[in-house]
Amino acid sequence: MGDLDHRITVPVPRPQPFFKTMKSTMKETFFPDDPLRQFKNQTLCRKVALGFQYFFPILEWAPRYTLDYFKSDFIAGITIATLAIPQGISYAKLTNLPPIVGLYSSFVPPLIYAMMGSSRDLAVGTVAVASLLMASMLGDEVSAAQQPTLYLHLAFTATFFAGVFQAALGLLRLGLIIDFLSHATIEGFMAGAAMVVSLQQLKGIMGIDHFTNKTDIVSVMRSIFTQTHEWEWRTGVMGCCFLIFLILTKRISKMRPKLFWVSAMAPLTSVVIGSLAVYLSHAERHGVQVVGHLKKGLNPPSLIDLEFGSQYLTTAIKTGIVTGIIGLAEGIAVGRSFAMFKNYNIDGNKEMVAFGTMNIVGSFTSCYLTTGPFSRSAVNYNAGCKTAVSNIVMAIVVMFTLLFLTPLFRYTPLVVLSSIIISAMLNLIDYKVAIHLWKVDKFDFVVFMSAFLGVVFASVEIGLVIAVALSLLRVLLYISRPRTLVMGNIPGSKMYKSMDHYTVASTVPGILILQIGSPIYFTNAGYLRERITRWIDEEEDKLKSSEESSLQYVILEMGAVGSIDTSGLNMLKEAKKNIEKRGLKMVLANPGSELMKKLEKSKLTEEIGQDWIHPTVEKAVEACNFILHKYEQI
Amino acid sequence: MGDLDHRITVPVPRPQPFFKTMKSTMKETFFPDDPLRQFKNQTLCRKVALGFQYFFPILEWAPRYTLDYFKSDFIAGITIATLAIPQGISYAKLTNLPPIVGLYSSFVPPLIYAMMGSSRDLAVGTVAVASLLMASMLGDEVSAAQQPTLYLHLAFTATFFAGVFQAALGLLRLGLIIDFLSHATIEGFMAGAAMVVSLQQLKGIMGIDHFTNKTDIVSVMRSIFTQTHEWEWRTGVMGCCFLIFLILTKRISKMRPKLFWVSAMAPLTSVVIGSLAVYLSHAERHGVQVVGHLKKGLNPPSLIDLEFGSQYLTTAIKTGIVTGIIGLAEGIAVGRSFAMFKNYNIDGNKEMVAFGTMNIVGSFTSCYLTTGPFSRSAVNYNAGCKTAVSNIVMAIVVMFTLLFLTPLFRYTPLVVLSSIIISAMLNLIDYKVAIHLWKVDKFDFVVFMSAFLGVVFASVEIGLVIAVALSLLRVLLYISRPRTLVMGNIPGSKMYKSMDHYTVASTVPGILILQIGSPIYFTNAGYLRERITRWIDEEEDKLKSSEESSLQYVILEMGAVGSIDTSGLNMLKEAKKNIEKRGLKMVLANPGSELMKKLEKSKLTEEIGQDWIHPTVEKAVEACNFILHKYEQI
Repeated sequence: MGDLDHRITVPVPRPQPFFKTMKSTMKETFFPDDPLRQFKNQTLCRKVALGFQYFFPILEWAPRYTLDYFKSDFIAGITIATLAIPQGISYAKLTNLPPIVGLYSSFVPPLIYAMMGSSRDLAVGTVAVASLLMASMLGDEVSAAQQPTLYLHLAFTATFFAGVFQAALGLLRLGLIIDFLSHATIEGFMAGAAMVVSLQQLKGIMGIDHFTNKTDIVSVMRSIFTQTHEWEWRTGVMGCCFLIFLILTKRISKMRPKLFWVSAMAPLTSVVIGSLAVYLSHAERHGVQVVGHLKKGLNPPSLIDLEFGSQYLTTAIKTGIVTGIIGLAEGIAVGRSFAMFKNYNIDGNKEMVAFGTMNIVGSFTSCYLTTGPFSRSAVNYNAGCKTAVSNIVMAIVVMFTLLFLTPLFRYTPLVVLSSIIISAMLNLIDYKVAIHLWKVDKFDFVVFMSAFLGVVFASVEIGLVIAVALSLLRVLLYISRPRTLVMGNIPGSKMYKSMDHYTVASTVPGILILQIGSPIYFTNAGYLRERITRWIDEEEDKLKSSEESSLQYVILEMGAVGSIDTSGLNMLKEAKKNIEKRGLKMVLANPGSELMKKLEKSKLTEEIGQDWIHPTVEKAVEACNFILHKYEQI
Repeated sequence: MGDLDHRITVPVPRPQPFFKTMKSTMKETFFPDDPLRQFKNQTLCRKVALGFQYFFPILEWAPRYTLDYFKSDFIAGITIATLAIPQGISYAKLTNLPPIVGLYSSFVPPLIYAMMGSSRDLAVGTVAVASLLMASMLGDEVSAAQQPTLYLHLAFTATFFAGVFQAALGLLRLGLIIDFLSHATIEGFMAGAAMVVSLQQLKGIMGIDHFTNKTDIVSVMRSIFTQTHEWEWRTGVMGCCFLIFLILTKRISKMRPKLFWVSAMAPLTSVVIGSLAVYLSHAERHGVQVVGHLKKGLNPPSLIDLEFGSQYLTTAIKTGIVTGIIGLAEGIAVGRSFAMFKNYNIDGNKEMVAFGTMNIVGSFTSCYLTTGPFSRSAVNYNAGCKTAVSNIVMAIVVMFTLLFLTPLFRYTPLVVLSSIIISAMLNLIDYKVAIHLWKVDKFDFVVFMSAFLGVVFASVEIGLVIAVALSLLRVLLYISRPRTLVMGNIPGSKMYKSMDHYTVASTVPGILILQIGSPIYFTNAGYLRERITRWIDEEEDKLKSSEESSLQYVILEMGAVGSIDTSGLNMLKEAKKNIEKRGLKMVLANPGSELMKKLEKSKLTEEIGQDWIHPTVEKAVEACNFILHKYEQI
């Protein structure tokens, strides 16, 4: 070790101008991805072009588009269209909207996304969970059966606000809100929602007319088993057959990924077979419910249908915000996962703007909330899509369907749609996730289960709120009860490590080394003060009983104290007083720049003494030992 | 450095049984002060005695009480009594309660606290802020002028619930809730409340009859200046005189701490002078408002007055909880500060039980919310109190007053009481705190100002909610945007330090060392993933432009990663994939035991490879350099 080594002291950072600090904090908070990086050192003209490319990534990749790409995208587009049509109708039914709205929603939004989205694998469409959420939130205020037009208009309005909210989040660079939905929260919520969605389908499979409006399992089960007289054996049998068929095809595709088209085609095949069966047997006259007449033609404009003056405006806004967040969470998570596989980057904030615009335009053209559903995107990916052109192909297929093929769905039995939804949902209820969470992180398991049980037994919103609250509580609890660990020297080295972790480490005589495990804030200042006192008490008791040399120094290792507030500074001041009253000396080791800045500003560096602040634990121990031994020699 | 040194690897802690981990977490969260420590290794009989002593600290110190102590406590008790009587009456008026209730509240609660409290310096009594809060929260529902009996009973009920809530918090060891009120929040809130309380007193000073019920500055000012015809010059002049007298005596006591009794006696002196002046001049007949008739006799029981069946029960509960928390925050902060001066310990949870019991018993004996006010406790401390006996002396003086002296207050003018309140409040509005916060911590300044402005311009509750929300937001923001720093080697040493902080540090060729500044949670996993990528991008750009040797290793310093959840583990997995796709190698340095446990459980140790996990950055760099140079030699 060089001589220089001994002269190294902890520097006090030069005070920065306030606005410079604020600017850099703002930048880290809202622009962590540095989106303006590529604009540096460019001509104005080029900057404008780059700006357009930023918001419309299609401008960037379209010039490089090749025929080979198109072949792949074409196949993928056709494949997802065969999935999109029956799913669109099914989810629209789930939302209590006219089935045709589901088809409309698979036409306009994918076109918008193809221009503005940065994911190459996302297939745009409606999703079950957001559909259910919208149905339950709007259904609390307006009955879809009694006021279908008002309900439809409110759905458009909610979609509009979801879009505005999504775009605003993106433009205001508030993508971090999505970060507050933890992995465990989303998994638990999705599993619970899938369960609830599946339960709702029992209505279609059993052919029950009078069904509860609530979504919890108790109400649904009561609704089914108190109305056994309404059970319809024909639909029941049909439902089970299709469900088995769909699950089997899924199994096949799962075992042989090359046969992805088997499961992708299965829903449309079911629809065709089911419709033919009904048409030939005239089962619709014997109690089997069918989709019925669908209007031919493309999306009618719906701008004037938005209910801005309605008394239900707040409901629409609330529904829009909640479904918007859920939609974003799913869409961005899906986009990110596939980007990871193919090793390209997705800009969360840009995606939000794309989703937002797609929903705003959607709400003007009779569409309801769309995002990037996992199931459809996975099929798109497996079918070999290269770019967002697969979404355009899908939209064109849906357009043809709307223009010419809608009469074909007249005899499609609802029970087939229910089977399609259930088979899509079964994938989401994954007990293995729960086992994994239990093994790795008990608290995440609790979050997962409370989201799941909250959704299943109470309601979709309650489950979500419980899970988010618990996740945040965990973060706050961690911050209010940080770890403090006693460090010891590892024999034969100059390393100082937590004695809890490195069992070979041993204490240094006369010195207690404490590691503070988190930033010091008002939430933990009180706790840390008491905990430090307790550590000293315990150490002194131990030393007394073993009759070793008494304690002289308390070294606080501050490596993890990345930040401190005024309550924390007061705590340090008090801790110093406490320690000194016991005749001990407080020494700081390894403080970071932020901490040094604050210590300096609050005059604590002087109070502690620059000599008692060391860059490493090793140096601090050396300094203490030096003085200890000097006194011994005298 | 010894040979052993090279063989040290990061140990993986043995998995602990679930219930053991949970038990220790629970213990750290709820019993950080280890209250059962003294019960260890004691006989049953002794344990019971210690248990009684735990809840009634008087049993512990009473046997050791001496006459010398009593002399000091007697003087202190008399001094705070002279303050307690006028303040009690004033604050009761502030709460819109009969003045006598203020005296009742200075009799029973101090006796209870003397037995159960562990502070030796706290003087029990009512406080202005909690009084105002109670007035504003109850006043929203019930008018004190129109339904005085109901209002009084609701005040008792609210006090009862405040007591139950406080005691419950203490018994359930939830003292950590108080921790969520930050230093800046409390300071800002107190300053704002003091401002509001002073503004309210303009009613008394101007002698205005019709005054607004609202507390915000705009309403109060409008109320005063639209009713200039109600201004009463006699009270105005009296008010200003007394205010100047009180402020002067405060100045004197502040300059010469020995003359503490000057300012302590001033309020009672003002009351005597004011009453005499009114009595002699019969000013009460000329528009000067006076306290009026006070019933002789001790506290009547009020147990049957509690309004458990009333429609306003929820209001009472809400008021009780909010005022209870504010009372606790002030009382515990005050107790702790004085305990710090005299170097003894205060157990927050025990204090909560004492405050709770005192308020429950208070609510049964016609008292309203009491706590430990700062002003009175400071006088108690300065008067040289030794134990809680000074509270008993004060209670006995108040008892005599209640039994014999109440008629003397008949002619006390309200304007004197207003002056007393204002002069007590002026101390709390301390602009120096704001300047200090601005200098040391800008965010705390924002919290302070928003609490202050929220209370002054909106309402007491709104100010409090804004400040708490902002404080929590800060913690969450810190956790969602943790610092990542590039570390470098300090020349001539083996230390690796943040290059931002230690400007002498320089990078190691081919290696990028990143320090992760906080636990990895769902709130920051996404950010960290992007930030790590950006660091690598920037580093590679820099190397490219300077044509240095290309990057080979990315070392992540995990010293501050005290905890990780499943989202965090996923992030690490993704980061590893990302780094490897660029042809680099990810190396972990200095992981803690919690992190190692989680890495092992989620099989990430295998994936990363135990060889790529090192106990210190130094070892990690050595290992990387070893391989780098080996390849160079080949």
